[in-house]
Amino acid sequence: MTPPALEFWFEFASTYSYPAAMRIETLAARAGVTVAWRPFLLGPIFQAQGWSDSPFNLYPAKGRYMWRDLERLCAKHGLPYARPAIFPQRSILAARLALAAIGEPWLPALVRGIYVANFAEGGDISTPDTLGRVLGGLGQAPQPWLERAQSPAVKDALRAGTERAQALGVFGAPTFVVRGELFWGGDRLEDALAWQLRGD
Amino acid sequence: MTPPALEFWFEFASTYSYPAAMRIETLAARAGVTVAWRPFLLGPIFQAQGWSDSPFNLYPAKGRYMWRDLERLCAKHGLPYARPAIFPQRSILAARLALAAIGEPWLPALVRGIYVANFAEGGDISTPDTLGRVLGGLGQAPQPWLERAQSPAVKDALRAGTERAQALGVFGAPTFVVRGELFWGGDRLEDALAWQLRGD
Repeated sequence: MTPPALEFWFEFASTYSYPAAMRIETLAARAGVTVAWRPFLLGPIFQAQGWSDSPFNLYPAKGRYMWRDLERLCAKHGLPYARPAIFPQRSILAARLALAAIGEPWLPALVRGIYVANFAEGGDISTPDTLGRVLGGLGQAPQPWLERAQSPAVKDALRAGTERAQALGVFGAPTFVVRGELFWGGDRLEDALAWQLRGD
Repeated sequence: MTPPALEFWFEFASTYSYPAAMRIETLAARAGVTVAWRPFLLGPIFQAQGWSDSPFNLYPAKGRYMWRDLERLCAKHGLPYARPAIFPQRSILAARLALAAIGEPWLPALVRGIYVANFAEGGDISTPDTLGRVLGGLGQAPQPWLERAQSPAVKDALRAGTERAQALGVFGAPTFVVRGELFWGGDRLEDALAWQLRGD
């Protein structure tokens, strides 16, 4: 029997989703686990909790810690890093683009490319320019994909996905979901994979 | 040259401080690292952030996740666990008692005993009864230690310690501090130990 996929709920504006997105394909493949890529938006979920901004901006001590911690994590995992000037970035177009590309073999590379643009290259991921450049780097024609990203079907799918995240109990990103179990935070990726393999 | 101790900032009401407190003595000893035990109170720090209660009570999705996560963590590390009826518990007397016992060889066992009372035995750690029972289990006469815990010097030391935590940038527990670097969360204990051993 094929085990269910590990759901990877990620938000392109989320700092800790960056190392997780960079690591997950390799770690999951090594463990023999399939990844279901689930782009979503944290904004509506934060708003439901009464937050109008990222908690890292609302709570300065938490924010200062997070930036330093992210820098250390990137160094630990050998990932490029440069603190972005804009935080959080508007991630809706990027999320729609990833959703439009679900099932494409280059989706994981697209996701990583968008994160690197945000957290290592100082790119503005809210623009078709930046996203088009990432698509181009993967040998994909930007225009048709950016149009697909803005189609009503994809817009609806992102809205539905974000509602499903909320219904699952997701309150932050990244979150891994394995047979009804939530694992919040990139540092739980190994635990989520281990849970997936328990098979009970 | 002796490397500086790893500072372990913990709060007896804090759920994630429990597994950290249970694991730190063994892990630090194995790494050859000295632990400086730093009991403090999160209440004043949360209040400064505008929270009148634990964020796990203020944000229900976060709270539901935390209890399940804590249960899984305890299972993973082989620690006893039973969800306490009261959360968060009033931890001021316990923190004062730990501060009074700084330097005693049985301090780590006292800390673990108080956490087990809170998170595995359904004990009310705000009472001299519960704390006295933990002291007794360590072969210590409860009365003199509970009196020392309530001395003005210890009360002042707890206030000063909590202020120092805030000045260091501590915003949650457990937090490990190594040469000016903060590591927040029990899942960062191994990283904090590794940082301590880098020696740069």
